[in-house]
Amino acid sequence: MADLPTDFFTEEKPLETRWNHAFAKKSEDLKPALQRWPRNPQHVIRFDADQSQYWGVKPSLVTKTISEFESQSWGKGDDFILDFGIHMVGYVSMKLEARGEHMDAPCRLRLTFGESPLDVTLGMENVRTWISTSWLPDEVINIDMCPETLKLRRRYSFRYLRVEVIDTSPKYKVAFSDITCECVSAIGQDVRIDSPLFQSDMLSNIDHVSLMTLRDCMQTVFEDGPRRDRRLWLGDLRLQALANYKTFKDFNLVKRCIYQFAAIPREDDSLPACLFEFPKFTPSSDYIVDYDALFASVVYDYVEASGDVEAGLELWPTVQGCLKKALLHVDPVTNAFDESREKQWKFLDWQPKLDHNAGLHGLVLYCLKATNRLARLLGKEPPHEEMVSKMTEGAKVFLSKDQLFISGPKSQLSFASASWLALSGAFPQEVARTALLNTLKHPDAVKPLTPYLWHHVCDALATVGCIDECLETMTGYWGKMVDAGADTFWEAFNPDDCRDSPYGDVRNNSFCHAWSCTPTYLLRGKLWAQAGKPGSSRVLTMGELDNVWIERSKQQLAVNK
Amino acid sequence: MADLPTDFFTEEKPLETRWNHAFAKKSEDLKPALQRWPRNPQHVIRFDADQSQYWGVKPSLVTKTISEFESQSWGKGDDFILDFGIHMVGYVSMKLEARGEHMDAPCRLRLTFGESPLDVTLGMENVRTWISTSWLPDEVINIDMCPETLKLRRRYSFRYLRVEVIDTSPKYKVAFSDITCECVSAIGQDVRIDSPLFQSDMLSNIDHVSLMTLRDCMQTVFEDGPRRDRRLWLGDLRLQALANYKTFKDFNLVKRCIYQFAAIPREDDSLPACLFEFPKFTPSSDYIVDYDALFASVVYDYVEASGDVEAGLELWPTVQGCLKKALLHVDPVTNAFDESREKQWKFLDWQPKLDHNAGLHGLVLYCLKATNRLARLLGKEPPHEEMVSKMTEGAKVFLSKDQLFISGPKSQLSFASASWLALSGAFPQEVARTALLNTLKHPDAVKPLTPYLWHHVCDALATVGCIDECLETMTGYWGKMVDAGADTFWEAFNPDDCRDSPYGDVRNNSFCHAWSCTPTYLLRGKLWAQAGKPGSSRVLTMGELDNVWIERSKQQLAVNK
Repeated sequence: MADLPTDFFTEEKPLETRWNHAFAKKSEDLKPALQRWPRNPQHVIRFDADQSQYWGVKPSLVTKTISEFESQSWGKGDDFILDFGIHMVGYVSMKLEARGEHMDAPCRLRLTFGESPLDVTLGMENVRTWISTSWLPDEVINIDMCPETLKLRRRYSFRYLRVEVIDTSPKYKVAFSDITCECVSAIGQDVRIDSPLFQSDMLSNIDHVSLMTLRDCMQTVFEDGPRRDRRLWLGDLRLQALANYKTFKDFNLVKRCIYQFAAIPREDDSLPACLFEFPKFTPSSDYIVDYDALFASVVYDYVEASGDVEAGLELWPTVQGCLKKALLHVDPVTNAFDESREKQWKFLDWQPKLDHNAGLHGLVLYCLKATNRLARLLGKEPPHEEMVSKMTEGAKVFLSKDQLFISGPKSQLSFASASWLALSGAFPQEVARTALLNTLKHPDAVKPLTPYLWHHVCDALATVGCIDECLETMTGYWGKMVDAGADTFWEAFNPDDCRDSPYGDVRNNSFCHAWSCTPTYLLRGKLWAQAGKPGSSRVLTMGELDNVWIERSKQQLAVNK
Repeated sequence: MADLPTDFFTEEKPLETRWNHAFAKKSEDLKPALQRWPRNPQHVIRFDADQSQYWGVKPSLVTKTISEFESQSWGKGDDFILDFGIHMVGYVSMKLEARGEHMDAPCRLRLTFGESPLDVTLGMENVRTWISTSWLPDEVINIDMCPETLKLRRRYSFRYLRVEVIDTSPKYKVAFSDITCECVSAIGQDVRIDSPLFQSDMLSNIDHVSLMTLRDCMQTVFEDGPRRDRRLWLGDLRLQALANYKTFKDFNLVKRCIYQFAAIPREDDSLPACLFEFPKFTPSSDYIVDYDALFASVVYDYVEASGDVEAGLELWPTVQGCLKKALLHVDPVTNAFDESREKQWKFLDWQPKLDHNAGLHGLVLYCLKATNRLARLLGKEPPHEEMVSKMTEGAKVFLSKDQLFISGPKSQLSFASASWLALSGAFPQEVARTALLNTLKHPDAVKPLTPYLWHHVCDALATVGCIDECLETMTGYWGKMVDAGADTFWEAFNPDDCRDSPYGDVRNNSFCHAWSCTPTYLLRGKLWAQAGKPGSSRVLTMGELDNVWIERSKQQLAVNK
């Protein structure tokens, strides 16, 4: 326990008395041993401008084999890009040798670890972003003496490694060999997974990329993204857990994360939006109303999937606390959610124009129902029956006469409002379906910015029985990421602008982001009857699945060459 | 013996049969154990523009105490300069802590290790230089998690440490504490050294700065400069050894370096200009005619100073080899050195305009005489009596009718020619003195660019009995470095241009360079009778001497404040 609870129990500042040490201890006991395996680069590649590609660049082979690359040496101003063939999370090492007369000066390199082609083609200068530029994946390394085995101590999340030789000296060049990434995840290469076939290759691909995304985010917690910001967020956890129940079934990692949140409630029994494992186990100061409320759904989903009633009973008081703040927003007269009643961050999506009233109303109602369901699983009296009927009544203000879901003083139409109201079950399925479809079709409807909200759109469509529309949305969004070359799904995706970013600069985006891994959950669940090929299921190890995708990338390069 | 001879004896490529393994072994057995001691920063300082200063900037205090500094924290764009009070060579470590809500992003720092004020005020961008920019003393460091004790594994040579906080995050700032440099040298803090007083404080200061320069260059070999290029050059060794005999008297380190050169002669028995300890003991491909010849003088000086006749006898064959190439330049008819006879690098100084004939003639004659003297010390027949008289005769072509030392087809006047001809003893002292003074005074005389040649100018003046002119030259050159704030002497110094550099950019200069440490050799030797205060000698440890200079820098800052 190098990291958290040791400190947690011996904090200098008076320990927050409401924190639950037993839960913290339990979460620590569930900490997974990370699995490790090596990966090597497949090729040296080049990206050339090509406006027919989503990224505006197209990769092609520079050297056929890595041994060919290892025989070369590189001097001042030289620059190459290694393609590992698949996205990885891990620790990189390489052997450096000086070739020539003598290494009479140090060697200075810039290494850039690219998740996207832009990471290794744009460079990392002049990044304008409102989050920290310390996230940018480049390093400047000085080596005084070769031969040297360079072991980088930081963990990187990447597929491409760009090496720029800033300088050597006129008397020598540097050669690289044994470049290796020791990959890490809670899910090892030998983990076996059902890999059913689907009605289209694209759906199979989307399912695979979902799996690889989830795997790379499963570390000692469910990280939001292994590049950034490498930590556990409550809303993201919910989606990762749902995908995990249909795939890896790692119940312990979900349980660990649930107990981590339950260990550190805030003064008013609400839960932080995210937490930190390091340097010691602590809540973040971030608070998001919807994430807090969704904890009820996370616990219900867990108990329902795992059958771990004992945990459910232990967590029950926390579940009852996590809805309090959300309910303070509900107008006691209209029984409608009113975001103006409390100044707290409501999220739903990064979409800045979004009015949150209708969406949050749906989300809170959804969570109240999850709490009631959990109560029944635990043999308890459902506590929110009355509030459910009040808010079901209150939901009517969000449905316009012309069968559209509307939100706020300006009757804003949005995918967020429509999806969450449909998911809430506040309306008969027919009504919900019509209003949902009308709203999504409407030209004025505010669209999602992130896969997080696109998931809820798809889940809503599936929930009201619009399977075709759901599959269409999924292939039209996640499918486009696959077409653009994704082998893990991204934090944000604008099909029309490869440089779009919630942070002001795409180089600070994460391209392996857990909240976008949910297609596998829907494909293997609500969509299976229509999307799947029953009886076609094979069992693959994750290592085998990775190799399929490495082969795929090789074939793609062979075609481009 | 982690480094050299193990490899030396087991080289893959057929081992150069002429190499002398016994000498290599002997040199390795003489390898010093490096002494280590800690130093901490004295203040945070600021440099403000001030054209009255040599560097164009003037330091002043920002924080009085380091504990005041350690209580501060630093965020994006912050920048500070630590002054350690004295030049050091060593390994830096520091403790980093995150202050604020939480460290929710990595911390990115740029560290610049400054020997000169320009290193930490100009920045290291756009350096135009024909040697490797990998020598530039800056590092970009990324830290994922604090608290962390950052231990930089490279050795730095510096007095000032500039820290630029490239980014933290809006949620935290970083604080620094326990910043320490573990200094290294073959000469420890408790080494006791005679510290005589001189006729002026300036001469005492020049003597001290020479000592500190020499100490910082004394590592496992006599390095030319601990910043750049950190290795053993034959010509530099000669001057370091001379200064060492008058001060630290570390005969073993000189002997080690002499045997290193003697172990790796070239095909024609000449010696390389420099050699490498790492990754394995090997000669550099650099060859300099004058450095090769000077090996004879290095061995003579060593045997004469140490009385180690046994080593002299062992090295005698090498000494006889080291003059061969130089003598190939001597015209058999005129007996004058003619640089056009062989295409090899002749140095004397970095001065590009220099004609080398007269200077090399003097230098070769000087070395022939040293060889003869060595022969006598070893009870051998002086081998070069005839050549000495021939070249004494041949030297006359370099003396003009109007008593000037001239060189080459254009009868170039230069400090280099004049100094080496005076040092050679080719002329009666009266004649040599007149011609030397005439030449140095002459408006057309090509001036030196480096302290290496300025040393030979001073040595020549002292040799022909011009003590006042010598002291004037010394205070007018080395003294100006002291006035400019030097606590170690520099590789190159142009009193009129602080940005002058032999390499195209002053940021690649070395500001602790052994070939400029010789004033202590002359002051304690040829100049003592006139420059010293007999009977005034104290004994100081090097630690005490360092503290005198740290105090001096504090007082200077107090005045500037």
